[in-house]
Amino acid sequence: MAPKVGILLGSKSDLPYIEGCIKTLKELGVDYEVKIASAHRTPELVEEFVKREEFDLFIAAAGYAAHLPGVVASKTTKPVIGIPIDSSNLMGGLDALLSIVQMPPGIPVATVTVGKAGGTNAAVLAAQILALKYPQIGEKLKEYRKRMKEKVIKANEEINL
Amino acid sequence: MAPKVGILLGSKSDLPYIEGCIKTLKELGVDYEVKIASAHRTPELVEEFVKREEFDLFIAAAGYAAHLPGVVASKTTKPVIGIPIDSSNLMGGLDALLSIVQMPPGIPVATVTVGKAGGTNAAVLAAQILALKYPQIGEKLKEYRKRMKEKVIKANEEINL
Amino acid sequence: MAPKVGILLGSKSDLPYIEGCIKTLKELGVDYEVKIASAHRTPELVEEFVKREEFDLFIAAAGYAAHLPGVVASKTTKPVIGIPIDSSNLMGGLDALLSIVQMPPGIPVATVTVGKAGGTNAAVLAAQILALKYPQIGEKLKEYRKRMKEKVIKANEEINL
Amino acid sequence: MAPKVGILLGSKSDLPYIEGCIKTLKELGVDYEVKIASAHRTPELVEEFVKREEFDLFIAAAGYAAHLPGVVASKTTKPVIGIPIDSSNLMGGLDALLSIVQMPPGIPVATVTVGKAGGTNAAVLAAQILALKYPQIGEKLKEYRKRMKEKVIKANEEINL
Amino acid sequence: MAPKVGILLGSKSDLPYIEGCIKTLKELGVDYEVKIASAHRTPELVEEFVKREEFDLFIAAAGYAAHLPGVVASKTTKPVIGIPIDSSNLMGGLDALLSIVQMPPGIPVATVTVGKAGGTNAAVLAAQILALKYPQIGEKLKEYRKRMKEKVIKANEEINL
Amino acid sequence: MAPKVGILLGSKSDLPYIEGCIKTLKELGVDYEVKIASAHRTPELVEEFVKREEFDLFIAAAGYAAHLPGVVASKTTKPVIGIPIDSSNLMGGLDALLSIVQMPPGIPVATVTVGKAGGTNAAVLAAQILALKYPQIGEKLKEYRKRMKEKVIKANEEINL
Amino acid sequence: MAPKVGILLGSKSDLPYIEGCIKTLKELGVDYEVKIASAHRTPELVEEFVKREEFDLFIAAAGYAAHLPGVVASKTTKPVIGIPIDSSNLMGGLDALLSIVQMPPGIPVATVTVGKAGGTNAAVLAAQILALKYPQIGEKLKEYRKRMKEKVIKANEEINL
Amino acid sequence: MAPKVGILLGSKSDLPYIEGCIKTLKELGVDYEVKIASAHRTPELVEEFVKREEFDLFIAAAGYAAHLPGVVASKTTKPVIGIPIDSSNLMGGLDALLSIVQMPPGIPVATVTVGKAGGTNAAVLAAQILALKYPQIGEKLKEYRKRMKEKVIKANEEINL
Repeated sequence: MAPKVGILLGSKSDLPYIEGCIKTLKELGVDYEVKIASAHRTPELVEEFVKREEFDLFIAAAGYAAHLPGVVASKTTKPVIGIPIDSSNLMGGLDALLSIVQMPPGIPVATVTVGKAGGTNAAVLAAQILALKYPQIGEKLKEYRKRMKEKVIKANEEINL
Repeated sequence: MAPKVGILLGSKSDLPYIEGCIKTLKELGVDYEVKIASAHRTPELVEEFVKREEFDLFIAAAGYAAHLPGVVASKTTKPVIGIPIDSSNLMGGLDALLSIVQMPPGIPVATVTVGKAGGTNAAVLAAQILALKYPQIGEKLKEYRKRMKEKVIKANEEINL
Repeated sequence: MAPKVGILLGSKSDLPYIEGCIKTLKELGVDYEVKIASAHRTPELVEEFVKREEFDLFIAAAGYAAHLPGVVASKTTKPVIGIPIDSSNLMGGLDALLSIVQMPPGIPVATVTVGKAGGTNAAVLAAQILALKYPQIGEKLKEYRKRMKEKVIKANEEINL
Repeated sequence: MAPKVGILLGSKSDLPYIEGCIKTLKELGVDYEVKIASAHRTPELVEEFVKREEFDLFIAAAGYAAHLPGVVASKTTKPVIGIPIDSSNLMGGLDALLSIVQMPPGIPVATVTVGKAGGTNAAVLAAQILALKYPQIGEKLKEYRKRMKEKVIKANEEINL
Repeated sequence: MAPKVGILLGSKSDLPYIEGCIKTLKELGVDYEVKIASAHRTPELVEEFVKREEFDLFIAAAGYAAHLPGVVASKTTKPVIGIPIDSSNLMGGLDALLSIVQMPPGIPVATVTVGKAGGTNAAVLAAQILALKYPQIGEKLKEYRKRMKEKVIKANEEINL
Repeated sequence: MAPKVGILLGSKSDLPYIEGCIKTLKELGVDYEVKIASAHRTPELVEEFVKREEFDLFIAAAGYAAHLPGVVASKTTKPVIGIPIDSSNLMGGLDALLSIVQMPPGIPVATVTVGKAGGTNAAVLAAQILALKYPQIGEKLKEYRKRMKEKVIKANEEINL
Repeated sequence: MAPKVGILLGSKSDLPYIEGCIKTLKELGVDYEVKIASAHRTPELVEEFVKREEFDLFIAAAGYAAHLPGVVASKTTKPVIGIPIDSSNLMGGLDALLSIVQMPPGIPVATVTVGKAGGTNAAVLAAQILALKYPQIGEKLKEYRKRMKEKVIKANEEINL
Repeated sequence: MAPKVGILLGSKSDLPYIEGCIKTLKELGVDYEVKIASAHRTPELVEEFVKREEFDLFIAAAGYAAHLPGVVASKTTKPVIGIPIDSSNLMGGLDALLSIVQMPPGIPVATVTVGKAGGTNAAVLAAQILALKYPQIGEKLKEYRKRMKEKVIKANEEINL
């Protein structure tokens, strides 16, 4: 079976926050499927998606009192990555960050950076986890990191201060 | 049918936070039942409790990424009161407060004060809601408020500055 | 007597924050009346409005050191719902949130989400409370929640990632 | 008429926070009267105290959603000094500070340091205000500041590092 | 001698924050003089301004690590009102608020609301303090408050919800 | 090769924070090795430990400006779990949380709960990740979750309210 | 050897934050060299730059979990100045500030103001440090401060309130 | 002339916060003198100390609205290191941190870690600055760092997990 990531987001308006996530998953050769499903409005949709056997792990993005990643984590023992979204105005997304990272003992959520940077990081973390089992993803990750490095080095040629 | 409040808390260690709640419900003549049930560890227990018809409304207390009140709210259209508990060390309970109050549009949680003061306030709010339907509770509330007032007035006799 | 909600806001500039509230109350078949009245500038106006018998409960929205909901709560034993408004620049509305939710023991305010999402949630919470006494509102709430669910499900048909 | 300060606090448990205030008022030769009166539980007591003509200004101390200073300010055009008390666990008194200082335009509260240091500062500020009208208090203030300075200078003789 | 307020601000770019302050002082019949002077860059300018006998009290506005109000307070025993300005991006002006309000015991600054609302409140507070000595300002304050009240009442005629 | 977790902590005084982590790893049948190594004081020690092939993933715990997890993540493409420790007094560990979770795009750290609860969650998350490759750990996780559930259910028999 | 400052920033997008820094270094007659190098993506580039003997001290600017200044400090015993950048939305740069200033004991980073004001302050602080050894920079600093003072004084001529 | 650091603290009660500072300065062979002097209560004492020619740089520790380091910085062009002290209860010293680090452009304070860790870091930073001019201190710093490294390595021998 091919490695596959299940991506959940609470509402259609959160889509811009996972564009970088999807772009990076593609770059790293990781298959995925996106589902809009709310922890509170459509818990059955969440449950049904989470129970599908084809997924190796889940990424869930949410804002405000962001329960979605934790609710996903409570319904599976597969790894769950949480992306806090700064969609409310309150302290720039601290509400989402704390609602995701501060899970009580026993049901962790692997939390990444708040906002769009978190989308990219969720994809990389997903690939890092999958690489334990699928060596070809490990290769892609090494190339990805090499490209990052080259991009930094090259940036020096473009500045003139 | 008599008015009755269903009280949920995520763990046995949260019991001290609802002692004032229970004391105040008794004082206001409101029946209740307490259940320990975790949103993440025993979602079925939560669901089963919430589906029982005898409850008019629910009070849920939780700390850290406090999902319990919101999860209860997603399983019923009855009013849900949330008590944020300062059991983590992080900013004195701000994690629990934001995880409870910042519910996305459509599934509200009626949030009260962080900590033990919130236990008392949850009980009073529950009684205020029930009083809409059960006038005898309204009477109890008026007496309760009168006693509060008298206590303040009396405190002035005891100071000597 | 028909169920009716009294809505108070501290200033005309706060009106945009309760548009969602009013739209949702209408959708849920709950009658209401809006009054601009300041806890500090027109306490008599507040008192006079709060004392009117026709209201089952109150919704109060305020920003900055948001005293209005608490002052309303001190003048009635009916339930009071508070909407924190992020009208100051300070920490995205944390000032209003803490000024509303952190009520001392005995005089609770049922606090909802900061900002416009809180307007919608105040309306839903008001309907949930009224549904205890007015079963027709309970029916409307179930339909409302069903529509929310369908909207989430339908959003999946519109994405293509 | 002699200068006199009216001191209000919301509950007997707040007394330790104004001990330094009272000690400093005595030191500065300012007469005062202390009243326990809650903005929410005994608004009439607050109003009655505030309307007494003998007071030149008011000091009000409160914790949690600290409405007392603002409510006093709304009932008088005399100056009102607010002391935020860190009686809740939330962020070390930030709730009280924001509830007092963030007053909307038109009804200011002169806010001082959070906690016991604020008690002392409220007393000094009260004396500074009264000194505009009562020159003898101005003299006391100058001596007080001189003593503060001498204490700092003397502290250097006692250290040995 | 006529009542007069000395207004200090740390930089020309802070001028917009005191426009409301100046407008309100004029409305309340209080004379003033504005000086740009930095606690750190031109301490002598601050000292010279503060030592002028004609001022009854001072208003100082500052952003970032806002030392100006505290430095003014250390050079006089007249009352000093501090306006925290949200000119940095950090937490919406919390840096300025804490740098002004958290004065150590003995040298208070009467702190008002963060931002432009604070400008207005500083003017009202200044007038309230001056009214102790100059009864005509007390009359202006009562009229000002009456106009505020009328404005709120009138706002109700303009809404149609 | 057996699954193995490399655990890093910045100083000996952080040991109490990973006791729950070690206990839980044992309970879940996951082998581990603990190394004290500081990102800033002994970067070579960190590098040497991270380069050892036997580790499937890393757990790093740190307080203050907690760079250790991010530095580990920069030296490997294996998954890195970060535990924020509340060893400074500042905002209950917010410094460590933000220093760990807010990694820039490309080098993620899987961040868990602040403090001792985070120790347990790091162990569970490590087991969840390893279970992708080692099915026997998946079995252990299911039993662990079952025991958590039973413990919650049993807690209800012990309360009497 | 002439005094020279090595400036590091984590990404090209951070350049606007050090424009004021570079302008001020030029004004103070301090030579510098800018390098884009990431603590996590190109640690070797950082190390190579830091090991160059020609630099007297380093300035490092970074946002998010800003590890760059601390990583630089761990690779040299020369002074390191850190500029926190508010490039994330979270609390206006508090993440960067805490990640830079809260260094554990033994490896300090000299932290300055968050954002562009910090760029200017880093340059001035660098010059102040270099002036210990290079007296001509001390002269430039005195002139710089004199110009600042004159600018404040002159601003008073331009206002008319 | 021998290298010498001038240490200022606002009050005798802050002494415990600089014990680590003094111990580390001794260890690094840096001479120092401690003076208790308050920015607000004894500005002349501060000025007199700061003007003494024998000091190469200054360390200033303060809590609450910590103006002392900034005031020192305004009176000299020598480097000033600021230690934020968590002596108030508010957010664990965030008030002192922001009052020190957020200096407006032109007058920087080199800010270190909040609390006692900051004491040690101020001493190390002072030595790093002095080492530019006094090579023997550079040698001491290298030994100090070597001892730190050895201590970390040795800690591994003492644990048994």
